[in-house]
Amino acid sequence: MQILYKSDPQRGALWQAWLAQHAPDIQLYLWPETGDPQKTEIVIAWQPPENMMATFPNLKLLMSVGAGADQFDLTTLPPGLPVVRMIEPGLTQGMVEYVTFAVLALHRDMPRYLQQQREARWQPHSVRPAATRRVGVMGLGELGQAALTQLVSLGFDCAGWSRTPRALNGVACFYGAEQRDAFLARSDILVCLLPLTPETHGLLNRDLFSQLPPGAALVQAGRGAQLHHEDLLAALDGGLLSAAVIDVTDPEPLPPSHRFWHHPAIWLTPHIASQTQTISAAAALLENLRRYQRGEPMTGLIDRARGY
Amino acid sequence: MQILYKSDPQRGALWQAWLAQHAPDIQLYLWPETGDPQKTEIVIAWQPPENMMATFPNLKLLMSVGAGADQFDLTTLPPGLPVVRMIEPGLTQGMVEYVTFAVLALHRDMPRYLQQQREARWQPHSVRPAATRRVGVMGLGELGQAALTQLVSLGFDCAGWSRTPRALNGVACFYGAEQRDAFLARSDILVCLLPLTPETHGLLNRDLFSQLPPGAALVQAGRGAQLHHEDLLAALDGGLLSAAVIDVTDPEPLPPSHRFWHHPAIWLTPHIASQTQTISAAAALLENLRRYQRGEPMTGLIDRARGY
Repeated sequence: MQILYKSDPQRGALWQAWLAQHAPDIQLYLWPETGDPQKTEIVIAWQPPENMMATFPNLKLLMSVGAGADQFDLTTLPPGLPVVRMIEPGLTQGMVEYVTFAVLALHRDMPRYLQQQREARWQPHSVRPAATRRVGVMGLGELGQAALTQLVSLGFDCAGWSRTPRALNGVACFYGAEQRDAFLARSDILVCLLPLTPETHGLLNRDLFSQLPPGAALVQAGRGAQLHHEDLLAALDGGLLSAAVIDVTDPEPLPPSHRFWHHPAIWLTPHIASQTQTISAAAALLENLRRYQRGEPMTGLIDRARGY
Repeated sequence: MQILYKSDPQRGALWQAWLAQHAPDIQLYLWPETGDPQKTEIVIAWQPPENMMATFPNLKLLMSVGAGADQFDLTTLPPGLPVVRMIEPGLTQGMVEYVTFAVLALHRDMPRYLQQQREARWQPHSVRPAATRRVGVMGLGELGQAALTQLVSLGFDCAGWSRTPRALNGVACFYGAEQRDAFLARSDILVCLLPLTPETHGLLNRDLFSQLPPGAALVQAGRGAQLHHEDLLAALDGGLLSAAVIDVTDPEPLPPSHRFWHHPAIWLTPHIASQTQTISAAAALLENLRRYQRGEPMTGLIDRARGY
């Protein structure tokens, strides 16, 4: 089976070596090397090659190297081409770490303390028990569920919201448009892990912020285009929100002149919340390739209608 | 039973009301009110009154409102006077939150990312799996054990060190002077939760830092006098250590001119890692008072010989 890989070259080389050892029947070419394009059956990429369908007429499957597939322009792809995103334990673990870090930082007033540090000001503030801090996670897929499990173990009062009904141990689960207001009204710390779709584009805006409890905080680890930057700045400056930890922006990288960089209530990281871990992802990739070969349902298959 | 309380007045008033409801036989006076000093059987304080033994000749017990009793000058107290420190779930939970926050921050390079934010620089760095990050906690009492349980659940490669042997699930346990070097040599992130004693005074110094793996990071949530400030600055500036999260200093508050405030690799918080939580502590206090009345062993009794 012939596969074309087009993404970070270092990871590609490691995957190539790993597959050569564990699956000698699979031949992984590293872009710009393609082998015979007629024989390319699968493309694994972050950004797929231009004119992909014309160049690789026998393509049967497109795989994303990341947790999302929103970087693909699905409208340009043949409707019958299966698209798969990456689900692997390293990616999940990274997001659990980031969300746990960010929620604890906001729960414990760390942006305020770091601002005080800049001012050389020693001023303790009282601590609120985690059991009285209401954390709400939007998006209850693989990542949201794993993050909530960790937050529950820290004693937070946890809720989750998703498009369709879910049940999670120790988590108040809300779903759909009808229950969104109730979910937002009880989220002192709101964590966004939603995929980017037409419905979630621009979702984190003034309207949504105004439904949160006064002084709520935001963790944005979804996708950049979900967050309305100016609305966030206005909400922070107006006291509607108290602080935000932001990992994704639109555009990325964020221009050096952007106000997010120097806002004292914003902690900004450069899209590092979760990264595909080379070795654990190689095993997950191979497992999915074998499912494909056996004609079994693949992990992370995108529903083209809903967009994730 | 008559008790004198001398510490934060707001907490004192709440404890007074709580005890009046739950234990009407106990009379809590709030300093400077003392009632008849002849009848004072117990003092609960952070800093005890001057000439305490002369003023309250029938004192039978001294209780600290905090997790430590190192603020008491034990040499001035009668050898037979029992001294008890506070062990209560709110204090433990606060420390678990702080240590988890600090370890995740260091594990995920957050001081570096916040420095990049100041420079408006978007630069991702690769993530190392938690399973390969060796975290070492010094001090395996109530707080150290609870913190390690959480760190183990996050997948870190955890070790602990204590004066005497301990066994903890999923934690490589080291003890005593002989095993200290081996423990330090495998601590990429070192967490200090030790009590302040003559033995731990100045412990976090150049010698200790040089035994850690190169580029190790420090979380100091023990007591200020354990850390040699100049040695920490030299270790950070020389690259021996990469970063530090510091909650306790000597003196406190730290003077505004101190170099810790503006060092890019130091995150400084004003002794807020863990605070006695009024309500959960009231219940723990009453439980300990009842043990005292029944002549049973009290929780948190200080061993005067070892100093904690």
